[in-house]
Amino acid sequence: MTSMQTIGSSVEPTASAHLRLRPLDGRNVVIRDGLLAERQRVNREVTLLRGAEELERAGTLDNLRIAAGRASGERRGMVFSDSDVYKWLEALAWEIARQPSPQLEALARESIDLVSAAQEADGYLNSWCQVVDPAWRWSDLKEGHELYCAGHLIQAGVAFARATGDLSLLTVASRFADLIDETIGNDTQSSIDGHPEIEVALVELYRQTGESRYLSLADTLTARRGYGIFAGGRFEPLYYQDAEPVRSARSIGGHAVRALYLAAGVTDLYAETGEEALLASTLRQWNELALTKTYLTGGIGSRHDGEAIGDPYELPPDRAYCETCAAVASIMWNWRLLLVTGESRFADLLERTLYNGFLSGLSLDGGSFFYTNPLQSRNGKQRRHWHPVACCPPNIMRLLASVHHYLATTSDDGVQIHQYATSTITAVPPVAGPVELSIETGYPWSGSVTVEIVACGDAEWTLSLRVPRWARGTLVDGQPVEAEYADLKRRWRPGERVVMEMDVSPRLTAPNPRIDAVRGCLALERGPIVYCFEGGDLPAGANLADVALPADAAPADSGPLVALGGMPGVSVSGVVRDFDGWEQIEYGDLRELPGNGRGAEAPLLAVPYFAWANRGQGGMRVWLPKSD
Amino acid sequence: MTSMQTIGSSVEPTASAHLRLRPLDGRNVVIRDGLLAERQRVNREVTLLRGAEELERAGTLDNLRIAAGRASGERRGMVFSDSDVYKWLEALAWEIARQPSPQLEALARESIDLVSAAQEADGYLNSWCQVVDPAWRWSDLKEGHELYCAGHLIQAGVAFARATGDLSLLTVASRFADLIDETIGNDTQSSIDGHPEIEVALVELYRQTGESRYLSLADTLTARRGYGIFAGGRFEPLYYQDAEPVRSARSIGGHAVRALYLAAGVTDLYAETGEEALLASTLRQWNELALTKTYLTGGIGSRHDGEAIGDPYELPPDRAYCETCAAVASIMWNWRLLLVTGESRFADLLERTLYNGFLSGLSLDGGSFFYTNPLQSRNGKQRRHWHPVACCPPNIMRLLASVHHYLATTSDDGVQIHQYATSTITAVPPVAGPVELSIETGYPWSGSVTVEIVACGDAEWTLSLRVPRWARGTLVDGQPVEAEYADLKRRWRPGERVVMEMDVSPRLTAPNPRIDAVRGCLALERGPIVYCFEGGDLPAGANLADVALPADAAPADSGPLVALGGMPGVSVSGVVRDFDGWEQIEYGDLRELPGNGRGAEAPLLAVPYFAWANRGQGGMRVWLPKSD
Repeated sequence: MTSMQTIGSSVEPTASAHLRLRPLDGRNVVIRDGLLAERQRVNREVTLLRGAEELERAGTLDNLRIAAGRASGERRGMVFSDSDVYKWLEALAWEIARQPSPQLEALARESIDLVSAAQEADGYLNSWCQVVDPAWRWSDLKEGHELYCAGHLIQAGVAFARATGDLSLLTVASRFADLIDETIGNDTQSSIDGHPEIEVALVELYRQTGESRYLSLADTLTARRGYGIFAGGRFEPLYYQDAEPVRSARSIGGHAVRALYLAAGVTDLYAETGEEALLASTLRQWNELALTKTYLTGGIGSRHDGEAIGDPYELPPDRAYCETCAAVASIMWNWRLLLVTGESRFADLLERTLYNGFLSGLSLDGGSFFYTNPLQSRNGKQRRHWHPVACCPPNIMRLLASVHHYLATTSDDGVQIHQYATSTITAVPPVAGPVELSIETGYPWSGSVTVEIVACGDAEWTLSLRVPRWARGTLVDGQPVEAEYADLKRRWRPGERVVMEMDVSPRLTAPNPRIDAVRGCLALERGPIVYCFEGGDLPAGANLADVALPADAAPADSGPLVALGGMPGVSVSGVVRDFDGWEQIEYGDLRELPGNGRGAEAPLLAVPYFAWANRGQGGMRVWLPKSD
Repeated sequence: MTSMQTIGSSVEPTASAHLRLRPLDGRNVVIRDGLLAERQRVNREVTLLRGAEELERAGTLDNLRIAAGRASGERRGMVFSDSDVYKWLEALAWEIARQPSPQLEALARESIDLVSAAQEADGYLNSWCQVVDPAWRWSDLKEGHELYCAGHLIQAGVAFARATGDLSLLTVASRFADLIDETIGNDTQSSIDGHPEIEVALVELYRQTGESRYLSLADTLTARRGYGIFAGGRFEPLYYQDAEPVRSARSIGGHAVRALYLAAGVTDLYAETGEEALLASTLRQWNELALTKTYLTGGIGSRHDGEAIGDPYELPPDRAYCETCAAVASIMWNWRLLLVTGESRFADLLERTLYNGFLSGLSLDGGSFFYTNPLQSRNGKQRRHWHPVACCPPNIMRLLASVHHYLATTSDDGVQIHQYATSTITAVPPVAGPVELSIETGYPWSGSVTVEIVACGDAEWTLSLRVPRWARGTLVDGQPVEAEYADLKRRWRPGERVVMEMDVSPRLTAPNPRIDAVRGCLALERGPIVYCFEGGDLPAGANLADVALPADAAPADSGPLVALGGMPGVSVSGVVRDFDGWEQIEYGDLRELPGNGRGAEAPLLAVPYFAWANRGQGGMRVWLPKSD
C-alpha cells in the first residue's frame, strides 16, 4: 500500500481534484469553547463510552468475536450491525486525534484487533455471512447491506490512518476492498448494493492509498445504478437509488439516507474525475431537495414508509421522518459541494442541518438518541438509549468527533471561515504561508465574532467570512456586507482583528406557500437555531393544538434557560384560541361554523428545537398557525 | 346444525338482540335505478367476473386446488390469500340472491366445491398450512391471519345460507369453527389472531346456527385482546388491537382495518349480550374516531406506516392511507351502531363513507381498484387491475352486492329510510303488517325524494326519513324538518306519497381548525358527495399546487360531465396564484418575503371525488387553500 501525505481530515481530495476550496488539516482546527465544544466534550465523555457499552450489550461486538473464532453462540442483531462498530471506530479515530485518550485508544485497539481477527484469509469480512450462513456471500446485495458495511469499514480504516497514522484497520479495509473489486467489480451481472455507502468510501480509499482501482470501482458501482435491477419487491427501485442512472437523474427520492450517501459519493467522484455530468446531476438533485424537500431543521425524509424523501413540497411536520443519519449524510454531501463550488448555499444548509435536525438526535446529556426528528409531536417523544437498528447513534458520534473539520477551508489565495465557533485555526494558503487564526464568539447564541490573526506571512491574502443567508444587515468591522462571503483581501499583520456582527435576534419565519402541511404557519428562529414550543412551557391548562402566533408577534430573548444549560429562551406573545363549538364538528358547512377560536393572548416560551424532549414528556411544535 | 329462520341480510340479529332498529330482508329491497344501481350492475357484469379471472391468474384458487389434492405446484401469494376467495364468494352469494345468474352460480358452485374439498378431515382449512407447512398450524397467529381467513370463510358460508339457502359452505365453515373452538377457544395461552375479523363472523355464525358456542368463542377471543401478548416486534401491540382490553378502551388506533373489524364485532357482541361495557367502549371509540380521525371522505387511516389510524387531528390529505377495506369495515360498524342505537349520526357517516371513501376504490368501468384513497395526489395515481395484497377488490364486491341491505330498517312501530335510492322496499313492522314502499329519486345527484306507499295495513305506523346532517332546510311535504329523522306517524293509505326536498346545491366545507394538515383550506361538497379538483380540468398552464378558493366563492352546478357518465360537475371561480419570487425560497424571514401569490381569477371545475382518476393521469386535490 502506498501511504500518501495526509492532512487528517474526513474528506481529503487529491492534489489534482476539481475543487474551489480545500479542507484544512483536521488536527489544526480546535474548537475551544461554546456549543460545539460542549457537544464534543459530551461525545467524548459520555456518548462514545455509551457506544462501547451498547455495542457489547446488543451483541454487535460478539458477532465479530464469533466470526473471529473467539466466542461462540448465535449472531444477534440486524444484518448490517457490523457497520455500527465501524462508525463507532471512525468516531474514536477522530476523537483520539482531537485529543488523546488512553481509555478510547484502548477501546479502539481492542476493536481493531477484533475486526482484523474476524477477517477471512481472502479478505472477506461480514459477521452475518461468517456466522449465520457462509453461502450468503454476495447473494443478497439488495437487502444484505454487504457493501454498505464494507463502506463503513473503509471509512473507519481511512480515519485511523489519517487521524493516528495507524494503518492496521486500513489494511483490513483495503484487503476487503480488493476482494470486492475482484468479485463484484468484475461480475457480469452488474451487481450493486441496495444501500449506497461504499461509493463515497471507495473514493476516500483511493485518496488515502493512491490506488486508482478504488476510484474505478466507485465509478463502476455508481454507473451500474438506475436500471431497475431491484424491481419487484416490497420497495420500488427508487428506494434503492436504482430508478434513474446517476448521470441523468432529474430529481431525488427514495430512502433518504441511501440517496444522500450516494449523492456525497457522486460529488466526490466528480471532484476526482472532473466529469461534468456528475456535477450537473448532483446539483440538479441538490436544488430540488433544498428548495422543495428539506425541512426547516435541515432534516430530510418526509415519509415513514420507506424512510423516504417525499414529493416536492410534501413536508408534514408531524410525520416527518428526518432520520438522524440523513442529517449526517446531508452534512457530508453539503461539505463536498462546498469544496467543489465554493458557494455559501451549501455551507448555509450544512449549518441549518448541523444545529437543528442533526443535534436534535442526541440528548443534552449525551446518553440517548432520536432515530427520527419530527417537527411536531402531539404527545411527546422520548430519546432511546439505543436502537434495534443502531445506525444513528454511532453516526452522531463520528460527526461530532469530526465536526471541527467542517469549519474552515483554504484556497490558493486565502482562508475561508464557514462555521463560527471559538476556535484556533491553522491553515497554509499557498500565497501566504502558514496562517493562524484565533476566533472568539458566543455563536450560535451570539452573533458577534472576533477573528484575530495570530500569525501569518507578509504576502497579501484574503480572509473570507461567510455571511449566513439568515443574517440580515451583517457588519464586518462596522461595514455592511451584501455578499455571501465578506472577502477581506489585505496584507495582514499578526495581532490584527476583524469583528463581525450578525443579528441573531429572534425572527419569524414563513414557509413557501406551496408547502401544504404548514401553510399559514409561522416558525421562530434565532440566528441559525430553529426554536420550538413544548407543551410543558405553556400557560396552565393550555393545549399546544390551540396555540397560534399573530403575524405581528415580536419575539424577544427571555434570558438563559437554566434547565437547558443556560441556552437562551425566546418569549413571544401568542394566542391560546378557544374552539368553543368545535368539539362536535369535524367538518362543517362554511356558512354555519363557529369562529376559529380567537382566544386570549398568552405569553409563550420557545426553546431551541435541538434541545426539545430533554425535560420530560410533552408535545412539541416548530410551526404554529398564524392567528387570524 | 340448527337452521334458523333467516331474512337474507348480511347482519341478522337474533330476536332477543338489544336493538332499536332491525335490518330488512335483503331480498325485499331492490335498488332499481340511479348511482347505486349502476354500481351494482357494473359489479355484477364486470367486477365479479374480473375477480374470478384474477383469483385464477394470481394462483389464489390454485392454492386451494393444491390443498384439495386436485393440482400440484407451489403455493402462490400472501399468507392470507384464501380470504380473497371467501370475500369474493360472499359477494357472489349476495349477488345471486339479488338477481339470479347461471354464470355466477356456476362459479360459486365450483368454488364452494373446491373449498369443501380442501377442508381436512378434522375441519381445518388454510392453504398456507396445508400446502407450505403442516407444522405451521396455530403457530403464527400474530402474523399468519389464520383465524382472519376463517372469519371470512364463516361470513361467506353464512351469506350463502341466507342468500340462497345452500348450506354447503356454512357446513364447511361450522366444522372449521368447531375445530377453532376446541383448540384456540380452549387453549391455555389465551391465543388471539393478529388480525381481528373472526369475532364479527362468529357472532353471525351464532345468529345463523343458533349455536351459542360461537357467541361464547367470539366473546372469549374479544376478551383476550389488549394484554400486549404481541409486544416485541416490528409493530406495537396497538397495531394488532392488543394494547388495551376491549371493554376499557379509551381511544382507537393501530391498523385501521383491524380496528374497525374488531369494533364491528364488539358492537355485534353487545347486540347479542347486552353487556353495557361493550357498548360504552365502542361508542367512546366511535366518538373519537368520527370527530378527530376521519377524513372528509369517511376514509380512515392517516399513516402508511402500519396502515394505521393516527393521532387525533392527524389527517394529512396527501399521505392519507384510507384503505378501501377500512371504508368497508367502517360501513359495517356504522350499520351495526345504527341498528343498536337508532341514531342518525351513524347513518350519516355510513353515507359519507359509502359515496366517497368507499366508491373511490373502484374505477367507473368496474375493472380496477385503489388500495389507498388519498385526498390529494401531486402527480396522479392509477387504479390497478389487481393487487399483490388483494384484500380490497373482493371487499368492494361483497359490499356492492349487498349495499341494498343498508338502505332501510324496521322497528316495532314503523319503517326507517336511511339511504335514498330509487328502490322498492318491503318491510313488516309488527304494528302495521307488510308495508311496501316505492321510492323515486335522482339521489345523490338530486335532493328530491318521493316515497309512495304501495301497500300497507290499516294500523297507524311511522315512516321515518333520515335528514342528513349536511341537508340544511330540508322540507318534507313542504314543511321544514329540524329533527334528524322526519317521523311521519299516520294511518297510511296505499297510493299516498311523501315528498322530501334536500338542498344538494354545492357548498363550501371547512375543517376543524385543529386539523393541522388542511388548516385554512376549503373543500367542496354537493349533497353527500365530496368533490375534488383534477389537474386535467385546470386552465391551460395552471398548476394544481397554485390554485386557491376565495372564502366567498359561490360554487354552482356546471351541468353533466359527459366523460364521467353524466354525473354533475360543479364550477367555481378560483384563483391561480402566481408565486413569483418564491422559486428560490423554501423558508424565509417573514419581513422579507414575496407576496403569497395573489394571482388571477380562474374558472375551476370540480368532479365527484369517487370518480377521480378515471380520465387519465393527473394530480388531484379535495382541499384547496383559502386565498387571502
